[in-house]
Amino acid sequence: MNEQFFDFVSIQLSKDNKDSLYVQLYGALRELILQGKLSHGYLLPPVRKFAAFLTVNPGTVVNAYKLLEQNGYIFSRAGSGSYVAEIHDQVLAEAEQTVFETDMEAFAETLADSIAPIANDCIDLASITPDPEMVPIEDFKSVLIEVIDRDKGYAFTYQEGQGYYPLREAISLYLKPQGVNSIPENMQIISGAQQGIDIVAKALLRYGDYVFTESPTYPGAIAAFRSRGAKIIEISMEEDGINIAELEQKLRSFRPKLLYVMPNIQNPTGWSYSLNKRSRLMSLARYYDAIVLEDDYISELNFSNSSLAPLKAIDRDGRGIYLKSFSKLFMPGLRLAFLVTPPHLANTIMSVKHHSDISTAGLTQRAFDLYLRKGVWDKHIASVRNLYAERYQATLDAISRYLPEVTCHSPHGGLTCWLELPKGLSAEKIVQQARDKKVLLTAGTAFFPRRPIDSYLRISFAVADCDKIKQGIQTLGEVIQEQIYRI
Amino acid sequence: MNEQFFDFVSIQLSKDNKDSLYVQLYGALRELILQGKLSHGYLLPPVRKFAAFLTVNPGTVVNAYKLLEQNGYIFSRAGSGSYVAEIHDQVLAEAEQTVFETDMEAFAETLADSIAPIANDCIDLASITPDPEMVPIEDFKSVLIEVIDRDKGYAFTYQEGQGYYPLREAISLYLKPQGVNSIPENMQIISGAQQGIDIVAKALLRYGDYVFTESPTYPGAIAAFRSRGAKIIEISMEEDGINIAELEQKLRSFRPKLLYVMPNIQNPTGWSYSLNKRSRLMSLARYYDAIVLEDDYISELNFSNSSLAPLKAIDRDGRGIYLKSFSKLFMPGLRLAFLVTPPHLANTIMSVKHHSDISTAGLTQRAFDLYLRKGVWDKHIASVRNLYAERYQATLDAISRYLPEVTCHSPHGGLTCWLELPKGLSAEKIVQQARDKKVLLTAGTAFFPRRPIDSYLRISFAVADCDKIKQGIQTLGEVIQEQIYRI
Repeated sequence: MNEQFFDFVSIQLSKDNKDSLYVQLYGALRELILQGKLSHGYLLPPVRKFAAFLTVNPGTVVNAYKLLEQNGYIFSRAGSGSYVAEIHDQVLAEAEQTVFETDMEAFAETLADSIAPIANDCIDLASITPDPEMVPIEDFKSVLIEVIDRDKGYAFTYQEGQGYYPLREAISLYLKPQGVNSIPENMQIISGAQQGIDIVAKALLRYGDYVFTESPTYPGAIAAFRSRGAKIIEISMEEDGINIAELEQKLRSFRPKLLYVMPNIQNPTGWSYSLNKRSRLMSLARYYDAIVLEDDYISELNFSNSSLAPLKAIDRDGRGIYLKSFSKLFMPGLRLAFLVTPPHLANTIMSVKHHSDISTAGLTQRAFDLYLRKGVWDKHIASVRNLYAERYQATLDAISRYLPEVTCHSPHGGLTCWLELPKGLSAEKIVQQARDKKVLLTAGTAFFPRRPIDSYLRISFAVADCDKIKQGIQTLGEVIQEQIYRI
Repeated sequence: MNEQFFDFVSIQLSKDNKDSLYVQLYGALRELILQGKLSHGYLLPPVRKFAAFLTVNPGTVVNAYKLLEQNGYIFSRAGSGSYVAEIHDQVLAEAEQTVFETDMEAFAETLADSIAPIANDCIDLASITPDPEMVPIEDFKSVLIEVIDRDKGYAFTYQEGQGYYPLREAISLYLKPQGVNSIPENMQIISGAQQGIDIVAKALLRYGDYVFTESPTYPGAIAAFRSRGAKIIEISMEEDGINIAELEQKLRSFRPKLLYVMPNIQNPTGWSYSLNKRSRLMSLARYYDAIVLEDDYISELNFSNSSLAPLKAIDRDGRGIYLKSFSKLFMPGLRLAFLVTPPHLANTIMSVKHHSDISTAGLTQRAFDLYLRKGVWDKHIASVRNLYAERYQATLDAISRYLPEVTCHSPHGGLTCWLELPKGLSAEKIVQQARDKKVLLTAGTAFFPRRPIDSYLRISFAVADCDKIKQGIQTLGEVIQEQIYRI
């Protein structure tokens, strides 16, 4: 035997194994690398010779090498072969991603669950869609009529690709006090925040590119990135924002094109970034040349004392994209949001918007423009804030009273609380049992992009009133007690 | 020298060449294959040896082989190497695609041109957006108000993922007389036809997959497919539909996941498929296991004697997806369309819609539902048809009078005519010169997915009235005469 293969005598591949040969070979080589038997810089054998030694097709070796490379275990140098890479254990565990295709069917199933009709006798602490009762119907109806009478047929023809110009102007004015310098030319009107994420993914990510997200993060973003064939690397969220050390380490290893973050009232945790972490994040993005997509999910509902300026306000070199939905707290069914882009991306974003759905409905844009300019929007938000501030307080009070075993860092605002369960409890099981007692909650598993973690719960106070909130959390406390008792 | 390389002594690679080494090698090998010097089944040399012979990096050879394979010149067998493929000259020329990434910037530029404001003193034979004057404003305003008063806040909250159920029901009823059996469960409401194409592309195409389109075809579809990283294979359009022999030959070679067609009043030609071609297309799709996306662009404006049943009406095994915009002839700015999908794709399509933009605006859906149910839609379409039938006739008359040198197969309807210029004339030049004389037209180049062909013009009669049409086409005739004179 060629001495070249001494290191590989332990490898046993079998056609009877449930895994295909290349996956077996991948696993065996990965094992040798992780055990340190093949160390950093080790030159792997040439494909054909290795295949002959293993008595498999060269294609098997090629595929195993490919998977090892995709997962960061080896790297290739053109013309000289494949080498074992330097190993950061933690980083490698993250990069592991054997499912490369989006599992659309699985996503569709969770979706079907999530839109199942809610029985009327339940306490809904799951939905984050605001109460239909709170929609300012008459105000909006009157701007709609005003716009139709004013613009006639033009209210119904195609809009400019970037969106109705006066609306882009009105939004620029609205953003000024928050330190965001935008002009209508760098703004793109879109059909809701989800479309913003999808469009940015299309504009920046190619198949196989890396994108970084917080962990946990918004599942809609995970789905949009996966659908692009992008690989998601997750960075832990802490109470004061993303883990910066982890971010830096992973930036060194993966060089992503895009960082997707929610610096203000993060979804699902409700936490916000400290000033220090904001500026560190932007510096790192600059150094590693990544674009930062900032999803301003719900900062109008800030119940903390600190003011939350957008990252975009400290974007010095045009690498921040600011995404905001106006309709979340207003009329989710309106499907209206916008992106503020760096000037050099404005054209690309517009062309992606164009081949996604041409343009956002003109009537809505015109009506909302009037709504903003008349100041009705500010009035509406103020009243919504008051209502949710009460529910927010009621939720925190009930949690500290009825859920003593649970860890909850108070959110800075928003519509939800993020709870960590005591060790040994399964969030999915608790959600199920609470549902049997007619309380609806959300398990945290769906918010983790890679490995579902089953020890978090999300409680929403968007729909239930203060009494219902208290009652629902009390029931949840009983369910948790029962479970603890059983451990 | 190893005799293995006798066949390659003519290859000269140079670092001073503007093309990179692998592109040069690709070109040289391609040349040898096309000249028949390397025939079908020829085993190409192993990468490393070949690289040593050429004194280049193995990576260069790998990349050249990759490109040859992507373009169909060679194929690899795992474990035994790369072989020269069987050559269908015509097919190979089609498969050539050296630009693999979507050129977003270029697309954005053409886009910026196309939405540039139109001077008022021009005759617009370019735009296919119906006249804002024709929008039934008062009718729609009254259904909007009725819906808001009826549904209150519910008109503004999230809609079900597939769309407002009663609207899906109303559309199913509307489709029945056309032979399309749909149920609300297999229908997806979307924000315009462009989004439909984008969603189907996302649901079915992975990076590198093949998709077939007619040639010429709708540029928005080209952009959506490119953005998925799909490779487009084009099939010629004939007056009675797609070229079936060419379709079959290419199906054998490429095995696409998706065929995108417009069997009724094709965009841009205005031609429709014969019954025979419709059924042949569906049989071939069945045999080669491809999904057919049928874009029913504008069949309401059928000015021919034959009735145009959708392909979906003869879809026996659930491989047809029917796409229709309701807003094209009504209110383009409404952004409302739908897909009828095979049952096995309904969930996937819904999940793709969900991560594209959650759902289509609810208010619009509810208003349009009422509009359909009240029969106002049918009334509107009848009046639009009468108007456009006149303009259609005026356009054909003017073409036969003022453009004797041009070939024009009468379209079956729609809003446009497709003209073939006499040999030697450039469509883009003529568009430019017509523009100087204040007549706006569209050059056909953008409608060809792969190689722009510069000998077609599209004339639209969507915006100009009969007099303007006549006047515009007369001017076009003068421009063409001048050009012929110069040849």
